[in-house]
Amino acid sequence: MLMRSPYADMAPPDLGYAAGGLNRRTEWRVDADKLNAAAVAPAARWLMHCGDTLLIAVRDGTLDPLFDRASAAAVEAAAGVDHALETCFLGTHQDAPRFARLLDSASADTFRQDPAFKLIDLRSIAMQGLFPPPVLSEMATAKALFAWHARHRFCSNCGAPTTLSCAGWRRDCQACAGEHFPRTDPVVIMLATDGDRCLMGRQPRFLPNVYSCLAGFMEPGETLEDAGRRELHEEAGIATGAVSYVASQPWPFPSSLMIGCMADATSTDITIDRTELEDARWFTRDEVALILAARHPDGILAPAPMAIAHHLMRLFVQAKA
Amino acid sequence: MLMRSPYADMAPPDLGYAAGGLNRRTEWRVDADKLNAAAVAPAARWLMHCGDTLLIAVRDGTLDPLFDRASAAAVEAAAGVDHALETCFLGTHQDAPRFARLLDSASADTFRQDPAFKLIDLRSIAMQGLFPPPVLSEMATAKALFAWHARHRFCSNCGAPTTLSCAGWRRDCQACAGEHFPRTDPVVIMLATDGDRCLMGRQPRFLPNVYSCLAGFMEPGETLEDAGRRELHEEAGIATGAVSYVASQPWPFPSSLMIGCMADATSTDITIDRTELEDARWFTRDEVALILAARHPDGILAPAPMAIAHHLMRLFVQAKA
Repeated sequence: MLMRSPYADMAPPDLGYAAGGLNRRTEWRVDADKLNAAAVAPAARWLMHCGDTLLIAVRDGTLDPLFDRASAAAVEAAAGVDHALETCFLGTHQDAPRFARLLDSASADTFRQDPAFKLIDLRSIAMQGLFPPPVLSEMATAKALFAWHARHRFCSNCGAPTTLSCAGWRRDCQACAGEHFPRTDPVVIMLATDGDRCLMGRQPRFLPNVYSCLAGFMEPGETLEDAGRRELHEEAGIATGAVSYVASQPWPFPSSLMIGCMADATSTDITIDRTELEDARWFTRDEVALILAARHPDGILAPAPMAIAHHLMRLFVQAKA
Repeated sequence: MLMRSPYADMAPPDLGYAAGGLNRRTEWRVDADKLNAAAVAPAARWLMHCGDTLLIAVRDGTLDPLFDRASAAAVEAAAGVDHALETCFLGTHQDAPRFARLLDSASADTFRQDPAFKLIDLRSIAMQGLFPPPVLSEMATAKALFAWHARHRFCSNCGAPTTLSCAGWRRDCQACAGEHFPRTDPVVIMLATDGDRCLMGRQPRFLPNVYSCLAGFMEPGETLEDAGRRELHEEAGIATGAVSYVASQPWPFPSSLMIGCMADATSTDITIDRTELEDARWFTRDEVALILAARHPDGILAPAPMAIAHHLMRLFVQAKA
């Protein structure tokens, strides 16, 4: 038998944005007949965006993020046609086609005072657990795509305007024939451990008292293990031996892929890079358990359970055996 | 003790482009004094590029890819100053600063007939094993950076020209104040296994008779496990259970990060996507051993040892125990 990693597919169901229930049907993206049929299917649903904010329907006190064709059209008519920007085909969920539609940020004004709608950003949706994981995953996909479209309306190769193609999964330049694909920026996020202790730090932008795993963007020419070692050295002055991949998580703020690892520290003296971190320190396993339970004596808190950092911390505590 | 993945840092030394001996010294990128000092250090060396091709010095029959300051300046003077495009600071190798310099493709004509130089592309360098792994890793970093610069001379946000900043690790737009960072495109490459068999396929662009692991670009909103499952289903119609990360490898053609995984197939009937693959089939472990040894009765061959696919195949054979 092939060796199986103890971490194979260990991502828990509450890992935000990671529950992939979507059949992306990539072959439909270039098939106009399939796309047209999908758009008129009775089961088809649209995620509606006003810029970076999701528009949610409020019906009898319940929130519904999925608009049918008529409701989506009504939203657009209310906003005014000049607010419509673009549409992406996300795929199908249990054979029901899913689309995402982007109106501009100003269109939000149309709905802000209307009790039939709620405007809310994806991070808040995830933190409040408003919708089931598969819907959250679709929202993350749509958000990453639209953020990419927003920043790529011109060709980076020649400067001419680009247009959406492949049902939202490519942008094309007529001037130089360039084809541009969505970005996914890999980020290594790791819990460095030294026996019964692990290293965590806090960035100034974190919520008060929250400590988390260190993380950083991967660069060209790096393996993910090397990127993890570099970040630990740059941010905390820690040397690292073996690095083990644990799980990954899409993080559409705006287009990251979080790659979660455990790292064996081989030095323990911390030198903090103050441009990145406000603080970094070693916590014992017992302390991490208290932090996860929000009972740490210094009031130190963990990132939300939806974040892969929380998951890495939990694994560390569970490994106490 | 924390569970250690059996695959933690298993990348072998011959995995191409993955030997990271570079201290990137990211803090120097925005420190003009440090950069200037690095550029005049006697140990400083330059990788010289004529477009997508590396310029190598030939001295007494040996190849030297690293130019000192005077030799690099002489190359530029010979090419003519109008061919000079940009410089990136790669970092230091054993305290020796390393830079990469890009001249345009046309500058190659100056050196093509000169016996003191050799023009060669990175893929050929790697296949022929011309230089030690750390140099190969630096070359991969430079190639990925320059390929990104070449395709990003304009701002994707507003269409205005961009300029190199941060010693080659960013491009800035004066018009909209946009900051653009190098792309790293994660690709999942996986060996799907069904007990004693594994799935391999061949793309039309492969060398004759070469079969390899299936692979595909990750998309926004996916975990790497989901991306692997999607690709196996799209390209070969195979359903997949657990996916285990094994190792990663920078693959600068132009800017990929290959993420190598083992995948448990849960179905075995192959349906080939002919737009992607010419063929795909199951091979027994014994066949894979023969393929790696170039002794398969049908003449089937493996990708080069420098490729992560080769490494995954070797792991599969070794797991026979």
